[in-house]
Amino acid sequence: MTARLPDPPDDLLARAAKIRLLGLDVDGTLTDGRLWFDADGRESKAFDVQDGQGLALLRKAGITVAFVTARASAAAAHRARDLGVEAHIGVADKLACIEALRARLGLSLDEVAFMGDDLPDLPVLRRVGLAVAPANVHPWLRESVHWVTPASGGRGAARELADLILHAQGRVDGLLGTTP
Amino acid sequence: MTARLPDPPDDLLARAAKIRLLGLDVDGTLTDGRLWFDADGRESKAFDVQDGQGLALLRKAGITVAFVTARASAAAAHRARDLGVEAHIGVADKLACIEALRARLGLSLDEVAFMGDDLPDLPVLRRVGLAVAPANVHPWLRESVHWVTPASGGRGAARELADLILHAQGRVDGLLGTTP
Amino acid sequence: MTARLPDPPDDLLARAAKIRLLGLDVDGTLTDGRLWFDADGRESKAFDVQDGQGLALLRKAGITVAFVTARASAAAAHRARDLGVEAHIGVADKLACIEALRARLGLSLDEVAFMGDDLPDLPVLRRVGLAVAPANVHPWLRESVHWVTPASGGRGAARELADLILHAQGRVDGLLGTTP
Amino acid sequence: MTARLPDPPDDLLARAAKIRLLGLDVDGTLTDGRLWFDADGRESKAFDVQDGQGLALLRKAGITVAFVTARASAAAAHRARDLGVEAHIGVADKLACIEALRARLGLSLDEVAFMGDDLPDLPVLRRVGLAVAPANVHPWLRESVHWVTPASGGRGAARELADLILHAQGRVDGLLGTTP
Repeated sequence: MTARLPDPPDDLLARAAKIRLLGLDVDGTLTDGRLWFDADGRESKAFDVQDGQGLALLRKAGITVAFVTARASAAAAHRARDLGVEAHIGVADKLACIEALRARLGLSLDEVAFMGDDLPDLPVLRRVGLAVAPANVHPWLRESVHWVTPASGGRGAARELADLILHAQGRVDGLLGTTP
Repeated sequence: MTARLPDPPDDLLARAAKIRLLGLDVDGTLTDGRLWFDADGRESKAFDVQDGQGLALLRKAGITVAFVTARASAAAAHRARDLGVEAHIGVADKLACIEALRARLGLSLDEVAFMGDDLPDLPVLRRVGLAVAPANVHPWLRESVHWVTPASGGRGAARELADLILHAQGRVDGLLGTTP
Repeated sequence: MTARLPDPPDDLLARAAKIRLLGLDVDGTLTDGRLWFDADGRESKAFDVQDGQGLALLRKAGITVAFVTARASAAAAHRARDLGVEAHIGVADKLACIEALRARLGLSLDEVAFMGDDLPDLPVLRRVGLAVAPANVHPWLRESVHWVTPASGGRGAARELADLILHAQGRVDGLLGTTP
Repeated sequence: MTARLPDPPDDLLARAAKIRLLGLDVDGTLTDGRLWFDADGRESKAFDVQDGQGLALLRKAGITVAFVTARASAAAAHRARDLGVEAHIGVADKLACIEALRARLGLSLDEVAFMGDDLPDLPVLRRVGLAVAPANVHPWLRESVHWVTPASGGRGAARELADLILHAQGRVDGLLGTTP
């Protein structure tokens, strides 16, 4: 059980139980949306260590995790490598990217989750089996997702989604070293 | 409609409908006011990705967007270039800068919006057709603007202003791919 | 008047009216207390642009402003230079430093204000005419200051103190370009 | 007394009174969990100056302080050196690391405290005499610790734990320069 989501609705659990591929927007979803610029115009951004732990656990559970970001960001590629997950950087059409990933893995749309916070994520959020947004989602997208996490992007939103999937797929007791 | 501003007053919508030029202060308005200094005195600052999305949408809608900052900041110039908007850096007199921009574009003051958070913004805020401040506005300026956004600088304030203008100018349905 | 401090008590105004020297701790007072370390051990910290505006206004009003920090921090020295104020860096005994400054300027302790947030600030806070702490002050110091600002360090605390002094010394109308 | 913990339960004070070794996780415990990546993939993180003051006071009181982190982080090693405490970086098995430290110092488990926020900390938290987590602890760990501090990691959590230990060991009056 996830203490932050004490009683996930049955529909959400059913959707999460099927997921084999999780796509994640980066800025505003895996980060709090801040882009640090230094005096040379070099860009930094901040990822969350608990989010990373959740994505690593999904990967160990055999779920493919992929960053999908429109922004050409070297920082995002470095973080993906750090976590051992795929990075699709500078993606103009996120839906096409996810469709290609899905085809490569031989999955149906029901087996795909996506998390994003702003307009470029809307086409893919409208299609996947589990569409999730962080608490800081742009208000125009709020009604296009199945779940808005209590946590914000870069502050636990991705972890809450990972926890939901792990819970729905019966992985929690094993992680805690407890018998069910 | 903007969910964060469920019912914008008619006066605010009428002002926003006329805007053709948006000037924005940088520190405290497009950032949360923090200036990172490293051991060499080099300065960084953090911009918001959702704010940037809003400014890009305004630009696509034909509205001129310009950063106007007193501080000599290379980071601000880099972020403006990243977004494809004008940057006026190290500006001693913001009102004169906006007046020059307005004259160049052949606009009236009714067609100009400005957003700022502190005393150097006061002269220009007192003149433009739509004067807006982020939630973190210095209290001495609060009564000199038409609107204080619910969001703070660098955390969605500029996006809320962009959304208001896009809404007032009938652009939202097109952006969401929905028919009105 | 400062909107954030609608009704400053008379005692606080009387103390602020006399101030000619303001000493400020850096980490936790002019910053939010965070020290960024990079992979080479180089340290950065974040100052607030509204705080800086307040300190610049005090300086223009003829008040001496000085950073007094125990930590050997190049970033603090750079920020002080940026604002045109004094920096005393790597100070083991803050009370001795303030006493030396006071003697140099020929001031009494009643004319000195100090702002700090933790144990190394305690000896000087116990002596000066106006002892102030940011909202994030360590709880053990709370009863040793005349005022705890509503704002936190690096997020407006120094500005609230600057505003109080400017208000107590009758400078606000001039700054706003209004006649009293 | 700690104002943030006005009335620590007797059991917690009894546990804290015995502590001679404090182990601390880094990311999410001594930091807020954010990992800044720059365009070259170089990692920075932010430590808290009040936390550092607390750890320095523990060290002066003769308590061994050690960072114990799974992540290979040069920044953490630099911060530990800055504070004059031990750093165990890139630790795969935190319990084994703490057991080795304990054996080296000739302590019993009752004399060991550990603070951590996520699954890799769970085995050691289940064993030590005083198991503490910051407010941002992952919900699955919450019932495995003796105390969740009111403050979050990197924002005072470690200081609150240091204060508890200093209080339980009768050190506060000496620090404040007051007679009991």
